[in-house]
Amino acid sequence: MSGPDLAIVGAGAFGTALACTLARSRSEPLVLYARNAAQVTEMRDTRTNARFLPGVVLSERIELSNDLAALGSASRILVAVPAQAQGEMIRTLRPHVGSECELVICAKGIERASHRFLSEVAPGLPISVLSGPGFAADMANGLPTAMTLASSDRARAEATAAALSGDTFRLYASGDVAGVEIGGALKNVLAIAAGIVDGAALGQSARAALIARGLAEMTRFAAAFGGKAETIAGLSGLGDLVLTATSDQSRNFRFGRAIGQGVPPKELSKPGQPLTEGAFTAAVACDLARRAGIELPIATAVSDVIEGRLTVGQATEDLMRRPLRNEDATFDQGPKT
Amino acid sequence: MSGPDLAIVGAGAFGTALACTLARSRSEPLVLYARNAAQVTEMRDTRTNARFLPGVVLSERIELSNDLAALGSASRILVAVPAQAQGEMIRTLRPHVGSECELVICAKGIERASHRFLSEVAPGLPISVLSGPGFAADMANGLPTAMTLASSDRARAEATAAALSGDTFRLYASGDVAGVEIGGALKNVLAIAAGIVDGAALGQSARAALIARGLAEMTRFAAAFGGKAETIAGLSGLGDLVLTATSDQSRNFRFGRAIGQGVPPKELSKPGQPLTEGAFTAAVACDLARRAGIELPIATAVSDVIEGRLTVGQATEDLMRRPLRNEDATFDQGPKT
Repeated sequence: MSGPDLAIVGAGAFGTALACTLARSRSEPLVLYARNAAQVTEMRDTRTNARFLPGVVLSERIELSNDLAALGSASRILVAVPAQAQGEMIRTLRPHVGSECELVICAKGIERASHRFLSEVAPGLPISVLSGPGFAADMANGLPTAMTLASSDRARAEATAAALSGDTFRLYASGDVAGVEIGGALKNVLAIAAGIVDGAALGQSARAALIARGLAEMTRFAAAFGGKAETIAGLSGLGDLVLTATSDQSRNFRFGRAIGQGVPPKELSKPGQPLTEGAFTAAVACDLARRAGIELPIATAVSDVIEGRLTVGQATEDLMRRPLRNEDATFDQGPKT
Repeated sequence: MSGPDLAIVGAGAFGTALACTLARSRSEPLVLYARNAAQVTEMRDTRTNARFLPGVVLSERIELSNDLAALGSASRILVAVPAQAQGEMIRTLRPHVGSECELVICAKGIERASHRFLSEVAPGLPISVLSGPGFAADMANGLPTAMTLASSDRARAEATAAALSGDTFRLYASGDVAGVEIGGALKNVLAIAAGIVDGAALGQSARAALIARGLAEMTRFAAAFGGKAETIAGLSGLGDLVLTATSDQSRNFRFGRAIGQGVPPKELSKPGQPLTEGAFTAAVACDLARRAGIELPIATAVSDVIEGRLTVGQATEDLMRRPLRNEDATFDQGPKT
């Protein structure tokens, strides 16, 4: 089938930024698909995505479409829809794409209903996962960004990383899908915790300590589910954690900060409020950790605060006053809360 | 000898903040020693350290002294002077303290003249090292802070960590002196790099990627000198790196940012300018790495920029355009620049 061999599904901020970044380093067209016909028409007319990525001009090489048939020629599709919408999106597009088409998962999270990692939500198609520190605005504006591209088939990871990389957008190949997915999911939870610390005015030193303890927590969780410590310490784990947990450009961080400032979590989760992925992930990660027999003190505190089982004051006190333990041991075994 | 059994040497911002923090959780007095008689008199009269830590009231339990004899009763002395001044300070105080007195090294860096780590600069006395994410202002104001206390004698590390910890100041014991010292020294170099990225307006995504690559670089360096990866991933490595590389409260970060904004490095190193420890450490770390046969691309770039061998534009381009490599491999072996 003739047509672009590269497509992006989802024209939110991140999907649109990906399209801009990839168009910059290619001479061939690519498809940016969105379900919403009115949004597609407006983007076509104005060559901008005013709602999600204002101020950025969409290259003429970006073909805007709300027709799934436009995906038929793609050998790679980057799926950039919210984590909880990914399963449905993939089931919808599945009949329209070739059986060899690679899906590059761009969302970060764990499917709430099934407790499955996102790479497990697309059976029957080759899968890779893109994750790491990249704000949509930075990418769209051509600022340097480095991320990780993982596939259980390492040759695929290397080929896809090379195909998508450009001068300012550098992808590093990894064979550790679990580690990359877990880093991307858990960092949202830890960003909420960092936001709480910030909102409660506990200082940058406390936030930095929390990030370090959070990395140990992510590493423990990854080990229990087959992910590697060095992946968690890399771009898609630590790199993304640092970005998300230190910037108010992050929705998860802002969500936590509002809680730390005293806004009741229930008010932040009302219908019509923006979706905060980490709020979903916290509860699911705690469930998974319980079954695996490991402790996630920070994620548990975040989940308890969101569900109203713990006040912010109690949570921060718990986290700070935990018994002194050797740091080496803490890193390996979860400390007792 | 009667008198306080705890002393802090050095009444800069950090030493004074340590005194405030430790006085808060103790009922016994402690000594804060400064060499400068006029400074001591002023602090005694005003109960503040107006020059280095304005706005913080010094507890009556802090005994201010410029007399080395006041250290004679101490069983523990926290040495909080600049890294390059530590050797001389310890030689000066040595005759005045007991042979069992423990020195807790609080500076971060590598002695420039000797290329020695700071724990090696105090022969003949028991040594431990305090390091981790703690801004003086946060500590002095009672905000929660968590740091690492390391000694090659683990029982000593545990006893000292417990003795110095309070409700808001939590010390975790470690047996990995090399890992703690290397984290504390190298994070200053990486903070300069992060500042350069910030000053050159390359975006928060690029800075986060740099921090993740910086952690890998610190881990490699530590491995070559006997430090552990889990120490580097903990409070004294990553935690301090995150704090220093994301905040303009950090002198090293501000030094880098000025360079990134176009100020010639030579102007920042003129006599009378504040000392920037990472600028010293960069060159020394590169020397040590060369002898050990490992590569430190970020520290090398920082050193080259400071010495005028590389422009900021060349350095950031080099760091971003390095050949694509697998992230797992990168973590273990230094990537080729």
